[in-house]
Amino acid sequence: MPEQITLYTAKICPYAHRVELALEEAKAKYTRYEIDLTNKPEWYAPQVNPASKVPAVAYGGPPVPADQPSLESVKIAESLVLLEFVADLFPEAQLLPSDPVLRAKARFFIDAVGTKLTPSWNSFFRKGGSPDDFFAGLEVIQALLPASGFAVGQYSIADAAIAPFLARAQVNLENDTGAWKEGEGKTVLSVIQSPRFARINQYIKDLEARPNFKATFDKEYIADVFKRRFGNIRAQNSQ
Amino acid sequence: MPEQITLYTAKICPYAHRVELALEEAKAKYTRYEIDLTNKPEWYAPQVNPASKVPAVAYGGPPVPADQPSLESVKIAESLVLLEFVADLFPEAQLLPSDPVLRAKARFFIDAVGTKLTPSWNSFFRKGGSPDDFFAGLEVIQALLPASGFAVGQYSIADAAIAPFLARAQVNLENDTGAWKEGEGKTVLSVIQSPRFARINQYIKDLEARPNFKATFDKEYIADVFKRRFGNIRAQNSQ
Repeated sequence: MPEQITLYTAKICPYAHRVELALEEAKAKYTRYEIDLTNKPEWYAPQVNPASKVPAVAYGGPPVPADQPSLESVKIAESLVLLEFVADLFPEAQLLPSDPVLRAKARFFIDAVGTKLTPSWNSFFRKGGSPDDFFAGLEVIQALLPASGFAVGQYSIADAAIAPFLARAQVNLENDTGAWKEGEGKTVLSVIQSPRFARINQYIKDLEARPNFKATFDKEYIADVFKRRFGNIRAQNSQ
Repeated sequence: MPEQITLYTAKICPYAHRVELALEEAKAKYTRYEIDLTNKPEWYAPQVNPASKVPAVAYGGPPVPADQPSLESVKIAESLVLLEFVADLFPEAQLLPSDPVLRAKARFFIDAVGTKLTPSWNSFFRKGGSPDDFFAGLEVIQALLPASGFAVGQYSIADAAIAPFLARAQVNLENDTGAWKEGEGKTVLSVIQSPRFARINQYIKDLEARPNFKATFDKEYIADVFKRRFGNIRAQNSQ
């Protein structure tokens, strides 16, 4: 029986979202504490995560309010470490398959997300680089997907690792909120919705239809934050 | 009972060395196939690892010579994926502890090796950057170590993940083979051997005394390769 879990998270953050997806999938009982990333509480870095990032978990220890973390709880950070931790804590949720080969495939998929997909998206999204690397990153992911179902067939932490990024990319492309030139978001979205990316489109639909996703993704809030962020960038760039 | 394991590896490569350490620690039966990284066999990328890197494993399938890999074996790449794979294949070797918190600590340690230690070493070693970042990386690792023993007490894949880098750093500093200015290797080594790094020095000794390390580390060969590589760089730079 797992001990108490307090998750320090932020709705906007895709890394933190990964852990929420895993906890929801496992039907875990946990306390969710929203950290304002633009104004972090003073106690957060010294008492929870010295790197001052979300996600982080305080595990075990006595029952305390989330904003008064106990010295007796174990503090764990890094989203991929936490995905494995949730899988280990809730083996009955089968967040990783039991077959070692399928487990390796799930972890290879997660590696590809971190080395191929998110860097190429960030380059396009944050720096206005060419979308071609992002398309190439999507093709790597698409090629790893089986004909149907999730990354390794059954839902796993591999899906929790990628869903937050694919969902946020979708929102940003739809709303044309990114460091690209005006209008390019919708052009890129039309490429992603073309037959070239049919398999990954189905995968995105499957990820977003999952109850764990619906319970953890606040699309309007996320759209608003990005509109404010990129509205300002465009206004500055056009001055 | 695991199926046949063929490891494609290269003595010089720290990433491949990680997997050899895990396999030796697990007393696994495996076929070791040395890939010449300067002249890779034509069949390697198409038939084993499209990324054309070591390490890679061919797992299962019929008994075949390593240089004629079967289509029926599963091919798995990426050193950290393979460390977890070996831990999954040989649970009795306890390459990860059973406690979820200790497993998370092992994975957090591995994350720190990849994000703090190896980038700072590579910057110093390959680009002749300041050693201060490398010292800072070593301090991060040192702070994660318990008072004695290995990264999480008992030997684990966390130790297999770091040992190849610490051992190669030692060889390069001793022989002054790096992109730094002549003599700086020995200066840095003397800092690392000072009381500031007492804990990590003991840890390096413990790692190198382990039978799995002795069985897999060819110090003279590695020293020779680096001497040739950096001898050439110095000769070019001084022209």
